Amino acid sequence: MKYGVLGTGDVGRTLAGKLVELGHEVVMGSRTKANEKALAWVAEAGPRAGAGTFEDAAAFGEVVVNGVSGQAALAALQAAGAENLAGKLLIDVCNPLSFEEGRLRLSPVESDSVGARIQRTFPEARVVKALNTVNCRVMVAPGRVPGEHQLFLCGDDNEAKARTVALLGDFGWPADRVFDLGGIEAARCTEMLMPLWFTLMQKFGHADFNYEIRRGSGSPS
Amino acid sequence: MKYGVLGTGDVGRTLAGKLVELGHEVVMGSRTKANEKALAWVAEAGPRAGAGTFEDAAAFGEVVVNGVSGQAALAALQAAGAENLAGKLLIDVCNPLSFEEGRLRLSPVESDSVGARIQRTFPEARVVKALNTVNCRVMVAPGRVPGEHQLFLCGDDNEAKARTVALLGDFGWPADRVFDLGGIEAARCTEMLMPLWFTLMQKFGHADFNYEIRRGSGSPS
Repeated sequence: MKYGVLGTGDVGRTLAGKLVELGHEVVMGSRTKANEKALAWVAEAGPRAGAGTFEDAAAFGEVVVNGVSGQAALAALQAAGAENLAGKLLIDVCNPLSFEEGRLRLSPVESDSVGARIQRTFPEARVVKALNTVNCRVMVAPGRVPGEHQLFLCGDDNEAKARTVALLGDFGWPADRVFDLGGIEAARCTEMLMPLWFTLMQKFGHADFNYEIRRGSGSPS
Repeated sequence: MKYGVLGTGDVGRTLAGKLVELGHEVVMGSRTKANEKALAWVAEAGPRAGAGTFEDAAAFGEVVVNGVSGQAALAALQAAGAENLAGKLLIDVCNPLSFEEGRLRLSPVESDSVGARIQRTFPEARVVKALNTVNCRVMVAPGRVPGEHQLFLCGDDNEAKARTVALLGDFGWPADRVFDLGGIEAARCTEMLMPLWFTLMQKFGHADFNYEIRRGSGSPS
């Protein structure tokens, strides 16, 4: 498969690297054609890896992964071009974070989310929100964290979600550890985990953790 | 010990009942002196149980538990009276929820929380946010959910937090399953779990579930 991965940060490089490792062809997209981090990644990742603009990456990919930070995501996707996203699975991994005097802020939040906003802005893309509740190293190596911890996804297109579940399986996440939360409006559920996630990360001193939903029977007594 | 429990809903009645069962004396507070649900609870709970206004309950309690819904909490605590909360451990269990066309809304949210707002409004109370991430039946019977799932708490007063951890121990939560997230400003971390909690509750069809934080080593490779 051909993937366009938007973003040259830790998330973009980690996901792009895993996709190449799995045998896919990947073009990593950034604002400029000759982004240094993207070129360094290409040199390391080998012949199935390429780099270009956001537009180049989105045009190349049969599937597009948004690994750009949440505050920059819409601009990056605009640069990628609606016509290069139309009809394609667009996996949105970002969280709409910023920091103000060291304190995490989240916008949009509450009744909205960046995932839902992306779907509204690009109605022909098939947006699936996924992977945004774990650190990028855990995304592609769930065994870094012990136990049957889980991922969440949501989106309006069931076939796009099924394809995402299959890809997560290739990343090491069995399908029964992926919770489908429903339509893309559920993206707020996972984006709003960020304040807890960040607080736990500071408490633990590292990002190798995840949530496991434990479930009882719901019996009345 | 003497407890004042504010609120006659499921949360208030469940926590008040557990406190009586543990041998404490409890006055359940509501807006009116002769709230039917409170009187029914007293009849059932026996001689260590009483009912009265929010003010009666707060004046009676050496510890006060806010089991009133998040949207009504500040008014209930105003009615309880700052002088009846001063210097006391005030365990805040609420979430600032409302529903709009069936959709969960949360206010305050993001940079604020109802827990932090309560502490600001009643600076002499020793507010600890706790228990607001699980259904009330799970609060007092963690065994309803299998596994080593956890609770979170936060607050500005370490001694108040230590006393809350001890009480949670009496409820069945070992101290190593209670995460201290820091000062009361961390209340937003747990209140913002509500959209996910509510979506999972709808998905599972019951509320017998909880989060278990799974943690790896954080090793570099």
